[in-house]
Amino acid sequence: MKEVVELLNKHKLEETIVKQQDMPEHALVESLMYKRHQEAIKTILKGLHSADIAYILESLPVDQRLSLWEFVESALDGQILLDVSDAVRETLISCMDNNELLTATGQLDTDEIADLAPDLPEEVMEELLQNLNDQNRQRLQSVLAYDADSVAAHMDFGMVTIRADTSLGVVLRYLRQRGELPEHTDKLFVVDEYNVLQGVLSLKRLVTNNAEQSVASVMARDIVFFRVNDDVEEAARAFERYDLLSAPVVDEQNHLQGRLGIDVIVDIIRKKSDEERLSEAGLRDDEDLFSSVWKSARNRWLWLAINLITAFVSTRVIELFDDVIVKIVALASLMPIIAGIGGNTGNQTSILIVRSLALGIINSTNTTRLIIKEVVIGLLNGIVWGGVLGLMAYLLYHSPGLGMVMAGATLLNLLVAAIMGLSIPLIRHRMGLDPAIGTSVLLTAMTDGMGFFIFLGLAKLFLDTPH
Amino acid sequence: MKEVVELLNKHKLEETIVKQQDMPEHALVESLMYKRHQEAIKTILKGLHSADIAYILESLPVDQRLSLWEFVESALDGQILLDVSDAVRETLISCMDNNELLTATGQLDTDEIADLAPDLPEEVMEELLQNLNDQNRQRLQSVLAYDADSVAAHMDFGMVTIRADTSLGVVLRYLRQRGELPEHTDKLFVVDEYNVLQGVLSLKRLVTNNAEQSVASVMARDIVFFRVNDDVEEAARAFERYDLLSAPVVDEQNHLQGRLGIDVIVDIIRKKSDEERLSEAGLRDDEDLFSSVWKSARNRWLWLAINLITAFVSTRVIELFDDVIVKIVALASLMPIIAGIGGNTGNQTSILIVRSLALGIINSTNTTRLIIKEVVIGLLNGIVWGGVLGLMAYLLYHSPGLGMVMAGATLLNLLVAAIMGLSIPLIRHRMGLDPAIGTSVLLTAMTDGMGFFIFLGLAKLFLDTPH
Repeated sequence: MKEVVELLNKHKLEETIVKQQDMPEHALVESLMYKRHQEAIKTILKGLHSADIAYILESLPVDQRLSLWEFVESALDGQILLDVSDAVRETLISCMDNNELLTATGQLDTDEIADLAPDLPEEVMEELLQNLNDQNRQRLQSVLAYDADSVAAHMDFGMVTIRADTSLGVVLRYLRQRGELPEHTDKLFVVDEYNVLQGVLSLKRLVTNNAEQSVASVMARDIVFFRVNDDVEEAARAFERYDLLSAPVVDEQNHLQGRLGIDVIVDIIRKKSDEERLSEAGLRDDEDLFSSVWKSARNRWLWLAINLITAFVSTRVIELFDDVIVKIVALASLMPIIAGIGGNTGNQTSILIVRSLALGIINSTNTTRLIIKEVVIGLLNGIVWGGVLGLMAYLLYHSPGLGMVMAGATLLNLLVAAIMGLSIPLIRHRMGLDPAIGTSVLLTAMTDGMGFFIFLGLAKLFLDTPH
Repeated sequence: MKEVVELLNKHKLEETIVKQQDMPEHALVESLMYKRHQEAIKTILKGLHSADIAYILESLPVDQRLSLWEFVESALDGQILLDVSDAVRETLISCMDNNELLTATGQLDTDEIADLAPDLPEEVMEELLQNLNDQNRQRLQSVLAYDADSVAAHMDFGMVTIRADTSLGVVLRYLRQRGELPEHTDKLFVVDEYNVLQGVLSLKRLVTNNAEQSVASVMARDIVFFRVNDDVEEAARAFERYDLLSAPVVDEQNHLQGRLGIDVIVDIIRKKSDEERLSEAGLRDDEDLFSSVWKSARNRWLWLAINLITAFVSTRVIELFDDVIVKIVALASLMPIIAGIGGNTGNQTSILIVRSLALGIINSTNTTRLIIKEVVIGLLNGIVWGGVLGLMAYLLYHSPGLGMVMAGATLLNLLVAAIMGLSIPLIRHRMGLDPAIGTSVLLTAMTDGMGFFIFLGLAKLFLDTPH
């Protein structure tokens, strides 16, 4: 069991494999590649958890990844496809034929097939549906019909249902007969004869109460449950807030439909925060580190194009003040500073706002307070940093006028930045759009354009001696 | 039970309260403030989960927050202090006297006291330690002695231990006698007479196997466990990878020390991703949305100061090319575009690298491949966007020379950006530093400075007609 812990990170993992094989580290990958030691590789793979194999596959370049993929026992294929990231899954599936895919996915649970469905060829999905029994086919079809962000699209069917009027002893006998429980079962769901949810009986309560007691007297009735159409991110927040491990999912008439587990929730939390960070930098998808250059480049282009357009527009402002720049060329080297510090403070504000919106802390009763606070901070920052920058400009160019213009422009642009950093995410949120996406592009365009305009405008007003 | 679901987000929550009170929405906060309807408020609070009260407290401005805090039943104080964010906790504790703090924390578990310890006054901690029994005092002191990033600092003591040679029937009888199990118990830990970990018995296996079987024959031996000094973030990754709900924590000699639960892990995942995003924008701490202006401003200053210094240094480059700018003033309005697009592509690369480093996907065997790939993307982007920008510059200023310089400078700066976006996080990582922190400042400084230098330098070389 020590080994499993040791496999926690790739370096350690490689060491383990290398030690077992008695070969230098760099030779390992080569050996994987040239299919020497085929038996040795198979033996090693056999000793690994499917999650660890998924991990190794993710950190290999595509060609090596596909070579290793051939060695993986087909019994593990399905589980590994579930474990790898979307981008890597695509590469793996692309080199499998329909028969291999059918074998790989045939042993999976209905909810797991649903997770893979978007990536599977249509013929494979059709064949899979035919192979399922009626209940599972219905489940799979209904899960696929739900919105991808809904709770239903993420639920599993690993639930054990019992009746309220049985005794705990009977429940225990039923479970012993049944044998293995679904993964992560921490509670049993209590339903009536119409499959309407009555409550839940945790395994904890089952084992700490006397066998003669009835389920009804021991079960929890005041429980957190979700509806099929609830937003899964809100469900994730509820899991965090109430420290849930699993929760029942019901339809509008309270019929039990499935179960939401913490394992899925952890993936959603991780994925959501990843997505936000990637989208802030204009990366559309989770990129496979080793996807083709062409694919990676295209993934990044939309953002670069938008950035280019906004940059062009905001720098057109500079054009308006050609004449002042020619006279006072120091303006050219000072103006990027004003634009830069505006972009920075604006981003600080907007990231805090985006985060607070995501946590739901911001609402109509406290927005005014928040606006006042951020504007006051903008003012305070403007006075402090405007002073510093003004002084530096004065010391560098020995011009009190230039110092004053620098100070004034900094103060004003920091105010612009604070207001933009607040209002862009707030307005996007009010319009029902994701406040994280695009905020930083828009903001930078604003603070750049306004920064140039304010600084050069002030310089024209106060420093442009008439000729 | 529907209510609890409705409390998921603040808006819904307010509605619930408002409906119950039959008063318009804006009056609610006022009523909280001016202590009208005191009884009504207390009644509402009584119906709420402590996590929901914590949530309301977080979204209230400080003065209103403290007024509401007075109304909260002191029995819930401890749990709420645990639930709120660090910044909000500080404001709540600051208005409590030592006696109130002792009452609030007196009912908490040892591991929960450890969580609050950094924020509690010394006298309160001493008094708390004295009130604990010997075992708990020792546990608390040892937890506090561990590194804050270690597994031990995050473990709890909610574990039930059993012996391998008992039968499941005896275990069940023992649990029934014991009554309530610690929160989130999904497995029992099997230890020998020296408290050395032997394996785990999940409640699932306990209820699905026959009472006559021995623990030894049913328990899992090949389990994931952690050592007290393991890094808690690595542990979090293991929880994700192996879909764990809880895991035992042992010392170097495999003596059972505590338990790590998924609830703590979820908090760590959330906190870590939050911290990374905040630190990328130069926000040092999780900011209380309503902390004082002064405190918020200081929280953001370090970064602004660094940004100012780097901006000043990188724009000094422009100074070197005064003479060209005066002659070709169009350069002044084009140069921010080159700097900007460089910063953007560099950030895209570095965010992907930082993320892959965090996931452990990057290692010595694939770095070279990665560098080649990113440089090729940089080159491809440079050719495409350099072409576009060159064409735009030509169309705007009708100067083929300016167009060529623009295209060349874009190409070169995108290469600089790709190399910097790769090497800054990789070098920081190799030096044992956090690759996320500071990468974006350093990168922007580089792409700005180099962008200006390359563009103006090329202009001076090719466009500056001798006079």
